[in-house]
Amino acid sequence: MPKLITLQNIKESRERISPYIHNTPVMTSQSLNRESGCSIFFKCENFQRTGSFKIRGAMNRVMQLSDADKKKGVVTSSSGNHGAALSYACNTFKIPLTVIMPENSSLYKVENVKRYGGMVQFCEPNQEARDRDTARFIAEKGAVLIHPFNDENIIAGQGTVALEFLEAVPKLDVMITPLSGGGLMSGILSAVKQRQKDIKIFGAEPREADDAYRSLKSGSIQSNHSTNTICDGLRAQLGSLTFPIIQKFADGIILCSEEEIVHAMQVIWQRCKIIVEPSSAITLSALTQKKSSFAGKNVGIILSGGNVDLYHLPWIKNKP
Amino acid sequence: MPKLITLQNIKESRERISPYIHNTPVMTSQSLNRESGCSIFFKCENFQRTGSFKIRGAMNRVMQLSDADKKKGVVTSSSGNHGAALSYACNTFKIPLTVIMPENSSLYKVENVKRYGGMVQFCEPNQEARDRDTARFIAEKGAVLIHPFNDENIIAGQGTVALEFLEAVPKLDVMITPLSGGGLMSGILSAVKQRQKDIKIFGAEPREADDAYRSLKSGSIQSNHSTNTICDGLRAQLGSLTFPIIQKFADGIILCSEEEIVHAMQVIWQRCKIIVEPSSAITLSALTQKKSSFAGKNVGIILSGGNVDLYHLPWIKNKP
Repeated sequence: MPKLITLQNIKESRERISPYIHNTPVMTSQSLNRESGCSIFFKCENFQRTGSFKIRGAMNRVMQLSDADKKKGVVTSSSGNHGAALSYACNTFKIPLTVIMPENSSLYKVENVKRYGGMVQFCEPNQEARDRDTARFIAEKGAVLIHPFNDENIIAGQGTVALEFLEAVPKLDVMITPLSGGGLMSGILSAVKQRQKDIKIFGAEPREADDAYRSLKSGSIQSNHSTNTICDGLRAQLGSLTFPIIQKFADGIILCSEEEIVHAMQVIWQRCKIIVEPSSAITLSALTQKKSSFAGKNVGIILSGGNVDLYHLPWIKNKP
Repeated sequence: MPKLITLQNIKESRERISPYIHNTPVMTSQSLNRESGCSIFFKCENFQRTGSFKIRGAMNRVMQLSDADKKKGVVTSSSGNHGAALSYACNTFKIPLTVIMPENSSLYKVENVKRYGGMVQFCEPNQEARDRDTARFIAEKGAVLIHPFNDENIIAGQGTVALEFLEAVPKLDVMITPLSGGGLMSGILSAVKQRQKDIKIFGAEPREADDAYRSLKSGSIQSNHSTNTICDGLRAQLGSLTFPIIQKFADGIILCSEEEIVHAMQVIWQRCKIIVEPSSAITLSALTQKKSSFAGKNVGIILSGGNVDLYHLPWIKNKP
């Protein structure tokens, strides 16, 4: 029987991390409501500390390290929003952090880690080297590895976003969340299905990295054939903790094409005047596709983050 | 003696327009506070209906048209945020609106007017043709001209933003507002200097369109030598109503270079995750320049609008 994270755990996590995170605002847009035929509520985690929801899980995990582990320091090989969030969380408690990053990482990602004090160690740009260097770092330094999603405390931390959302908008019928490794979605499912289980929860996944969709179809964790998507936050695959939760409790997974995602991103930027990354905008694209089934409903959308390289926008062809 | 708009008028305007506009949120950023050495409060008019504060004045003016004038219809030759706002306001009350626009206007601006139902009549792309065609339209159709800023009801409408701001953040020491034709700044001066006159109010003006700075220096309204600035909302010059108010009550005008404005715009996009146009970002650039004189103060910044052509961003060289 797959186990949800307990509501008690999520509530305690919320109490624990609340001094360090924002209760992010919920935004609405009359024109988008008119066009979509439903009432959309955007939970704006792009306004969250470090620019994404990832700080919720990272902070929750870091705060529960033992004193001995805190001294050993932390390592991760995830260089996106998790890396930046972990950097902020570790810095808050003066815990050394090293992020193992491919040497061809964009300057933008490197800076997001360094801004909050995390150290970066470069490795050859392939997964094997990354895993090997991370393992070596752990062996040599005794550092604690913090996984971006396959971790109970991370999942419980991500679930806190749903508690805030339900308080701000008590009458949601549906929630749509981006889906990658499944930490966010598992947290949300845990919080919502034990509180207001009539709320339907959908994951939005890029067609170009559709491991979760195929995993649910086949009944076992599938790898991504490719991760050729602009959603750089949605290239991971489900883990041993997140897969069973999503398999059992999710109400569906909606696949989105690259074109649809870029269009949704432009719509949010233009209408809502907020900056969201492609991995967030995918949720609106999922809603648009299933418009008819959401008609007249209150739809909650998780805008998971706003970390975008402003020099490389998917709708502009840069000069070479 | 220059006359401020009465506080009573601004309060009544607020009551009049409040069903049709947003009380926009105030945002803060810890990292920007740290870097600037003061506490910054951003009044987010980029989230306002039609994407800018202009709806405040436009709505206030349109709602006070006589029934006879409403039938005649409205015309304006200002095609930026005022045009879009007027389009929305007229549409709300089923009043015909025509905007006289140069035939080389960007598609983006044309669409902003048309989106809310305004009609567009193109003219040759020079000021003379624009004035002539507007005059002819008035003569032929008997339409009422609504000026973008040199109008008491427009100024009173813009002043409502300051009342909201003072309620949300009672302890402001300073306000910085973009300065173009002076409607917004005159409205703010009228609201603030009659309520909390110890609050200092500065206008931020592009160095490339510095008519207001030179007007205050010389003591009479000066024209812009050029308007070669990316701040497409700040190319107008002061009017007969706005000049004397600003001359008498403003605490200073801060000039900003194009480079500084673009940099401030990027900072706001990246840190605050909100979309503001160059004409808004100039306020942060003004603050940065005078950082030392604002140290430790509570500084209110008017982010006047967020209407940006996302295909043409000042920091990206597009492919030709």
